Amino acid sequence: MEKGSLVVVSGFSGAGKGTLMNNLLSKYNNYALSVSATTRSPRPGEKDGVSYFFKTVEEFETMIDQDELVEYAKYVGNYYGTPKAFVEKKLQEGKDVLLEIEIQGALKIKKKFPDALLIFITPPSAEELRSRLVGRGTETLDVVNQRLTRAITESEGVEAYDYILINDDIDTCTEKLHNLIRASHDRACAHLNIIEIIRKDLRRIEYVK
Amino acid sequence: MEKGSLVVVSGFSGAGKGTLMNNLLSKYNNYALSVSATTRSPRPGEKDGVSYFFKTVEEFETMIDQDELVEYAKYVGNYYGTPKAFVEKKLQEGKDVLLEIEIQGALKIKKKFPDALLIFITPPSAEELRSRLVGRGTETLDVVNQRLTRAITESEGVEAYDYILINDDIDTCTEKLHNLIRASHDRACAHLNIIEIIRKDLRRIEYVK
Repeated sequence: MEKGSLVVVSGFSGAGKGTLMNNLLSKYNNYALSVSATTRSPRPGEKDGVSYFFKTVEEFETMIDQDELVEYAKYVGNYYGTPKAFVEKKLQEGKDVLLEIEIQGALKIKKKFPDALLIFITPPSAEELRSRLVGRGTETLDVVNQRLTRAITESEGVEAYDYILINDDIDTCTEKLHNLIRASHDRACAHLNIIEIIRKDLRRIEYVK
Repeated sequence: MEKGSLVVVSGFSGAGKGTLMNNLLSKYNNYALSVSATTRSPRPGEKDGVSYFFKTVEEFETMIDQDELVEYAKYVGNYYGTPKAFVEKKLQEGKDVLLEIEIQGALKIKKKFPDALLIFITPPSAEELRSRLVGRGTETLDVVNQRLTRAITESEGVEAYDYILINDDIDTCTEKLHNLIRASHDRACAHLNIIEIIRKDLRRIEYVK
C-alpha cells in the first residue's frame, strides 16, 4: 500500500480553506481530514469530533504533557493542536491527510514530516479578502478589523511553502489543489527505490544474444 | 503574460520520453519543444529543424565558441546541445518549454535556470526496458546491449530531480506529466509577488466602520 501524503493547508482568514477541503473530501475518496483539538468555543453548527475535538484547557494540557500532539499553538487566547495518532494511522492507510493550520504550526510539522506538502491559499486581492470576511457575517466588525490587521502578519514564513494557490474560483482552485496533491505522489523521493531495483536487475539481466 | 516553465525530461533509453512529449504537444497548446542541435546522423524519418538541428562538428563548435548553447555534451561520440535563444523566446511567450536531455546536461540547466522542473521517466522494470529497446528494431543488437549496460549509469544523479514518473501506461503517464507541469505554475516562488501586494494593500485599506 502506497503511503499517503501529509498536506498542510494554510492561508489568510477568509481565503476559503474550509470550502476547498470540504470539496476535496466530498469529490474524491483519497482524502482524510485531520481533526484538530482546540480549547476555543464551538461556533454555531460545529460538532465535536468533526470540526474540532473541543477540549477544556486542563484536557488540552494533559495531551501536551503526554506527547499526544504533533504540534500545538496558542492563537487569540486559545490552544489549537494536531492529535498525532490519527494522522499517522490515516497516512499508513494510504490516505492523503489534509491538515489546516497557520504558518507557525505548519513549519513545526515540516520539521517532523519533511515530505509534508505545504500549501498556502490566498484570495486574489486584499479588497476581496476584506469583503469575504465581512460577508461571512458571523463575526463582529471589531473581530473583522482585528483579522484584517492580523492578515498582514499571518502570511509571514510563506516563502518556505511549496505552493501558493490563488482562490478566485472555488472549482478551479479545488481542481488545482487536487492535482498538485496527486502529483506529490510522484516526487522523486517517493520512487527512488524503483530506480534502485532497475539498476540491480540490469546487472543481472540476460542480455539479448 | 505569465512566463512558462522550463521542463527538463530525462530517462532511460526506451522509457518512452519521445512519445510522452509528442502526446503533450498534440493534446495541449501550452507547450513548445526545445529542438536540440546535434552532430549525430539523422535516423530514418527525422527532419532537420524538427527532430534536431543537424550540424557538422565545425558548425557545432562555432555555436560553442559564440556561447549560443545553454548546455552541450558529447554522448557516444556526438555533440548534443540546447540552443539558448529559442528556449528564452518561448518561455517569454508563456509556453512551457519541453527539453529532453540526459541527467548531466539537466543538472547544468538547473544551475542556470533554478526554477527548471526536472522529471525522470522510467519503465516499470528492467525487463520491460530491455524488451522496449529490442522492440524498437532500429538498432543493432550490439547497440541495444551497449544501451542496457549504459542504463545502469544513466540514472546517476536522479536524486536531484523533482519527479520520477513510471511509464507503464502511456495515456496515464501523459496526464500525470501534464498535471505536474501545470502545478509548477503555482509553486510558491511564482506567486510571492501577489502575497507582497496583498500585504501592502492591507496596510492601506479603509477598514469597515
